[in-house]
Amino acid sequence: MNDVSGTQRLALVSNSKRLNELSACTIVSAIRDRLITATSVMEACLERIAVREPQVKAWSFLDVDLARERARLADEWQAARFPLGPLHGLPVGVKDVFDTSDMPSEYGSGSLRGRRPTENADAVTVLHRAGALIVGKTSTSEFGMYHPGPTHNPLDLSRSPGVSSAGSAAAVVDHMVPLALGTQHTASTTLPASFCGAFAFKPSLNFTSMRASNVLVPRMAHVGLMARSVDDLALFAGAFDRRLAEVEALRHPPRLGLVRGPGWHMVSPDARQALDRLVAGLPAAVVAVDLPGEFDTALEVVLGLLNAHLAYRFGALPEETFRSFCPPLQEGIVAGRALSAARYLELEAMADRLTALAAALFRDHDALITLSAPGEATRLEEGPGSGVMSMPWSLCGLPTVSLPLLRGMNGMPIGVQLVGCQGSDRNLLRVAAWLTDAVLNDGSSHEQV
Amino acid sequence: MNDVSGTQRLALVSNSKRLNELSACTIVSAIRDRLITATSVMEACLERIAVREPQVKAWSFLDVDLARERARLADEWQAARFPLGPLHGLPVGVKDVFDTSDMPSEYGSGSLRGRRPTENADAVTVLHRAGALIVGKTSTSEFGMYHPGPTHNPLDLSRSPGVSSAGSAAAVVDHMVPLALGTQHTASTTLPASFCGAFAFKPSLNFTSMRASNVLVPRMAHVGLMARSVDDLALFAGAFDRRLAEVEALRHPPRLGLVRGPGWHMVSPDARQALDRLVAGLPAAVVAVDLPGEFDTALEVVLGLLNAHLAYRFGALPEETFRSFCPPLQEGIVAGRALSAARYLELEAMADRLTALAAALFRDHDALITLSAPGEATRLEEGPGSGVMSMPWSLCGLPTVSLPLLRGMNGMPIGVQLVGCQGSDRNLLRVAAWLTDAVLNDGSSHEQV
Repeated sequence: MNDVSGTQRLALVSNSKRLNELSACTIVSAIRDRLITATSVMEACLERIAVREPQVKAWSFLDVDLARERARLADEWQAARFPLGPLHGLPVGVKDVFDTSDMPSEYGSGSLRGRRPTENADAVTVLHRAGALIVGKTSTSEFGMYHPGPTHNPLDLSRSPGVSSAGSAAAVVDHMVPLALGTQHTASTTLPASFCGAFAFKPSLNFTSMRASNVLVPRMAHVGLMARSVDDLALFAGAFDRRLAEVEALRHPPRLGLVRGPGWHMVSPDARQALDRLVAGLPAAVVAVDLPGEFDTALEVVLGLLNAHLAYRFGALPEETFRSFCPPLQEGIVAGRALSAARYLELEAMADRLTALAAALFRDHDALITLSAPGEATRLEEGPGSGVMSMPWSLCGLPTVSLPLLRGMNGMPIGVQLVGCQGSDRNLLRVAAWLTDAVLNDGSSHEQV
Repeated sequence: MNDVSGTQRLALVSNSKRLNELSACTIVSAIRDRLITATSVMEACLERIAVREPQVKAWSFLDVDLARERARLADEWQAARFPLGPLHGLPVGVKDVFDTSDMPSEYGSGSLRGRRPTENADAVTVLHRAGALIVGKTSTSEFGMYHPGPTHNPLDLSRSPGVSSAGSAAAVVDHMVPLALGTQHTASTTLPASFCGAFAFKPSLNFTSMRASNVLVPRMAHVGLMARSVDDLALFAGAFDRRLAEVEALRHPPRLGLVRGPGWHMVSPDARQALDRLVAGLPAAVVAVDLPGEFDTALEVVLGLLNAHLAYRFGALPEETFRSFCPPLQEGIVAGRALSAARYLELEAMADRLTALAAALFRDHDALITLSAPGEATRLEEGPGSGVMSMPWSLCGLPTVSLPLLRGMNGMPIGVQLVGCQGSDRNLLRVAAWLTDAVLNDGSSHEQV
């Protein structure tokens, strides 16, 4: 985190950057030091949203009055010298697959239009208690399925932002909010982060409670964090687990295992080259890792488990509701209905086996390095892209980080994905900080102004 | 455990009881004090087995030479002043659903005839390390299904010993060994304990590893311990978790909840009366508990989960193997094949719900009290009885104890079943010790000679 002096920080704040463009770490510490107010940060964010939301469509719900009121209360809270949470005064977005008692919670589905739960999701409660100010709900595809939502890629409005945490990725990258909460069952955080150029962290399975959110497959239901730097990801993660609140880049080069696959045949040549170039330039020995052959079944296992749970969760709904669902959701339900209990148990056993095999990959590697997506953001008319590069890690509950360190042939970002051993979340963030520093060559990921 | 002096204990040992009739606690402490040898105890047990096994048929495999050799080594080990395990020198039986590297492991099935695994089950390793001497494998029905095995009830050879840990229950009750290991998915420990008059303890789910044993449904796969007193159950359990090694009877009457159901319509009048009489005579307030209505689905959930897993595990075997299976196994596989993945997930959700509801039952009760079986041991020609009285507790992973404190109209034992909150294993054994003392009215469950 930032350790510059108050005066320097004041210089930062009064510099050319607008408040909404500052990092989360800088904002939090500047508010804490009374250099800026939560209200001023909120106003800058709301202003940016007002300008850009008509094009980007990152939000399914915004409550500007509530956001202002919350910022005002945050400032009053601080003035009263109450203790401040780690995200005090920070505007954040929450993907609309988390229940919020004060905002609609529609999971991107017309079938839940106007739904107002009475309770907050546990992850939302964590944000409130940390002092974050929830500005609104970010757009998602219907129940997080592979179907385009309303959001456009803020870097090129004619391109897809990926699915399904697209609103969260777009809002962060477009400087509408410094942090936003997403989820991931297959690739829902990593893919939009790659397409939009966000920094993303999908922690290990069971990092935090997913109660009162869109849990489709419990063993694959992860929270996802979006930010604009590794330091900000750590600050964000620290609200859930304070051991992650500040991470220092690894001091020695990590042992990295380069994974090409499964699904590598889908990767575009520019993405392959970009990753190879990055890896070749690293001041670390990177060893190519051949995944065990069983990983060829990972996508089948992921989709089988997903479809079975879709059939369980949605299969008994009225035909009219079923027909209102997006095509991938309908198809998943139909495919899931055809699965037998015995096949389901076989899929679970295969998932257990892959999880055990994945753990063994980390005997000789601190982290695996691969792509976050098969290439640059797709064009809107091509659909929201493929999550193939993330599915095996989601299935095995492994922590991953996506870093926007590559560029494709059209100048759009492509994420580098780091994968860690289950439970090694802190160390993975340290590897991510090291890699970012090494690639950006400035020895620091602190605010640049 | 026994705290009488060495001289008193010598008196015990030299008294009228044969060595094979002594309690496990007495044997272990007498060996430890060099009053008797492991060899002499083993010889007494082998002699009893030789006399009774032709009628009782409690064993699927015995290795008399190996047992003698082990006893001799146990005595040499002690003579060399090596540290002694908590079960040092104690002959035990192991239900033949646990893998043993030195004995056949056939799970009661012709399809596994002559199977010799290379590794011991984890539970078997625990026994070896505790110094127990495994005499052989006790008989089980095929894969623990509700189908008669070869064993007869040692109290009345024309009656069933129950299923499926029948060999373990019979061997213990018939003084062939002081302790024997069983398992329970539905009622496999509790039912034979009730029919044969054994003391039995089915610990909480995940009490110990079930690796390399007959795990049909992981969430219902429990170990089961058979002995002839509560103290011996505690000694036995202590080999797995030393916190249970010695339990003192509760000093104050426990708050007991009397459960009649589900499946209470199957309970015979003499069993009902016997339980009511016992409860009425207790120096404790016993409150009748109405199970939540959801518990009416417990049997359906248990059988559905079981059938699904049977179809998964056995469904792909050759038709010839399938046709060699006992009828309940064949029927379970067929029923399981017809279950959909969505139905399976529904059953899992129902099991989760029942588990949560069950936990709430212990807010006002230290333990629940009910019957272990619907009545006395059935006659052999009537089949091995019903596990209906145990299934809900097995489904919810709750610890249970069965105490042979009731008698039916034919003078055969009927078990009183105590059910505890998940994880309250130690406290449940304390309640069991209290109840046994209260009913037997002697204030002590120590060896009586």
